[in-house]
Amino acid sequence: MDNFNYYAPTKYVFGRDTEAQAGQLTRWMGCRKILLVLGGGSARCSGLLDRVAAALQAEGVEYLLLEGIKPNPTDDRVYEGIDLGRREKIDGLLAVGGGSVIDTAKAIAAGIPYDGDFWDFWAGKAVVEKALPVGVVLTIPAAGSEGSGNSVITRLDGMHKISLRTDSALRPKFAILNPALTFTLPAAQTAAGIADMMAHIMERYFSPTQEVETTDRIAEGLLMAIIEEAPKVMADPENYQARANIMWAGTMAHNGVAGCGRREDWTSHGLEHELSALYGVTHGAGLAVVFPAWMTFMASHRPEKVAQLGRRVFGLTGKDDSAVALQTVDSLRAFFGKLGLPLTLSQLGIENPDIALLTAKFHEDKGTPFGPYFPLQPVDTAAVYRLML
Amino acid sequence: MDNFNYYAPTKYVFGRDTEAQAGQLTRWMGCRKILLVLGGGSARCSGLLDRVAAALQAEGVEYLLLEGIKPNPTDDRVYEGIDLGRREKIDGLLAVGGGSVIDTAKAIAAGIPYDGDFWDFWAGKAVVEKALPVGVVLTIPAAGSEGSGNSVITRLDGMHKISLRTDSALRPKFAILNPALTFTLPAAQTAAGIADMMAHIMERYFSPTQEVETTDRIAEGLLMAIIEEAPKVMADPENYQARANIMWAGTMAHNGVAGCGRREDWTSHGLEHELSALYGVTHGAGLAVVFPAWMTFMASHRPEKVAQLGRRVFGLTGKDDSAVALQTVDSLRAFFGKLGLPLTLSQLGIENPDIALLTAKFHEDKGTPFGPYFPLQPVDTAAVYRLML
Repeated sequence: MDNFNYYAPTKYVFGRDTEAQAGQLTRWMGCRKILLVLGGGSARCSGLLDRVAAALQAEGVEYLLLEGIKPNPTDDRVYEGIDLGRREKIDGLLAVGGGSVIDTAKAIAAGIPYDGDFWDFWAGKAVVEKALPVGVVLTIPAAGSEGSGNSVITRLDGMHKISLRTDSALRPKFAILNPALTFTLPAAQTAAGIADMMAHIMERYFSPTQEVETTDRIAEGLLMAIIEEAPKVMADPENYQARANIMWAGTMAHNGVAGCGRREDWTSHGLEHELSALYGVTHGAGLAVVFPAWMTFMASHRPEKVAQLGRRVFGLTGKDDSAVALQTVDSLRAFFGKLGLPLTLSQLGIENPDIALLTAKFHEDKGTPFGPYFPLQPVDTAAVYRLML
Repeated sequence: MDNFNYYAPTKYVFGRDTEAQAGQLTRWMGCRKILLVLGGGSARCSGLLDRVAAALQAEGVEYLLLEGIKPNPTDDRVYEGIDLGRREKIDGLLAVGGGSVIDTAKAIAAGIPYDGDFWDFWAGKAVVEKALPVGVVLTIPAAGSEGSGNSVITRLDGMHKISLRTDSALRPKFAILNPALTFTLPAAQTAAGIADMMAHIMERYFSPTQEVETTDRIAEGLLMAIIEEAPKVMADPENYQARANIMWAGTMAHNGVAGCGRREDWTSHGLEHELSALYGVTHGAGLAVVFPAWMTFMASHRPEKVAQLGRRVFGLTGKDDSAVALQTVDSLRAFFGKLGLPLTLSQLGIENPDIALLTAKFHEDKGTPFGPYFPLQPVDTAAVYRLML
């Protein structure tokens, strides 16, 4: 177990009708005039926006709207939000949506009080020291941004998609989590979200750090809960209890408890990132293809933690780590398949992947070799991509 | 899953030598003159007090001492601390010790800014709305007070031992967790602490709320980690990694993550409390006797959750819930026995327990019936006490 700091001061308000508390919570975080950041229109159509607006008005909180944030959010909307927020002298933000909306709100929150270009933080030229407070009403359980200090923004100039991780500066002050808001998510989006949250746990689980039993067991527990509840959600999208368990697991998957005391891996996210950048695939769906391929490669290079996952999470019983690791991949693929997720690049819609280019871009972004759990050389990376065919 | 709020803004600083950060963290929580609260002298003897004092001085933090806080801390020391803190105009507290020291610091922190008698909060006559900031350097993993909003104080007038639970008002601002500080704990204290942290998880686990899979799995994971690591700690008190896993599990056991979304039970704590009050037994050792007895009673009254624990945590495989529940009790008793914990009232040193009096006091304190998981009538309570013989 390595030394670590863990500081996650987000207030979670979980359950039915909790969006009615948006006004009181906004006042609690010290705000009276906020920017309300929204996605593509579903919050407006479903009536959620009206309910949140009424909650804000009831507490005398003024608000401005920044609407239409798209998946893989871009810096242009961040600059627009910073300009608007400065002009109107907002004192906080409320994100109503999923990861893209929350990440945009966080970037605006960091940019407004900063004298330079907000991109400095994402480019690693500056560290976020202060930010406006951000609240969240979550509508998509997947990215985990509602409880994390992270934000992923794409710079349009060059299409650089960069993830910024802060200890706590960009953690939301509160997150309203109402599982009923997720009843109407399309099945593919629900499934991709489940793959995404599982990946957040597994990136932390596949660690070179030894003797982190407490954190391992928390991570395994979260995976088992997701594996138990996900099929219920797919079979009955309005199963409140199953939606609730998935929503809470998605938050816990990425708020840091599954990573305490160890180095994390994040290789599969890097590999998927190149697929998204070149072929525009959905992040969660891409991870369902990447993770089993990476684990297959590990079965012959560093099987022990894959086998531990198989034994503890999927109940496998074999003695040989490599064999159990391969069975773990089969179990995971069978699970993803049941959710209707793609299992190959071709099922992702990528018929002729340029593996040389994907490999080159991966090492250009990450360095060579890359991989805390097992360092990948370019020849390894290409092999992992071939395992996705 | 029930609606819930979860807000745990404690900064955990975990690892070797982290007590060197006590000064910076005290400044970070906004303090320049603090009351340093200490237990019976081990921090002074071991040199820990000197290291903490040096860290405070390096950051220009002034401090006063309140020493000699005993197990089952009493209100007289709280009043003394409030008087001293007000007279000296302290702006925060640093507890260096285990649960008793931390709980005393929390009570002083709540009392100083309050116009009335601090006991009003414990008597349920007032709600803590503000408190001075409290930091912690933990030396005993057991009570979990370093991450909880709780504080247990005994009123000398009548010897009423009362637990106050706040959502977040009394959560420490920071907790320094250095596993190496626990190397020198006596074996009996280590073992009692392990029983205490397991009880904190199980009190949350035995819930009448259905469909809380995510929280169940977290609780089960924490229990499995403790069961794996505890024998290593007992065999080799200076096993840093095992001490680290136990310390972190003890904090997670009581900071609320094992209870999110459900009613909690706390019957066994209530039963143990009467043993402590009448016979002065150590809390954790008492819990090692009480919990298996309560679970034995549940085997014939509400076995399902006991059986789930047995199957998932102890790997039992039977089909019949009542039978598996009884095997779960055997497994738990065998585990406690390996740690050298008492398994009966007689092993606790109570040869002729007054079961009628214990039962009457329990229901006087808790009401009739009491027990969220299974409501105990006095006849049931007496039966549970008899199962401890």
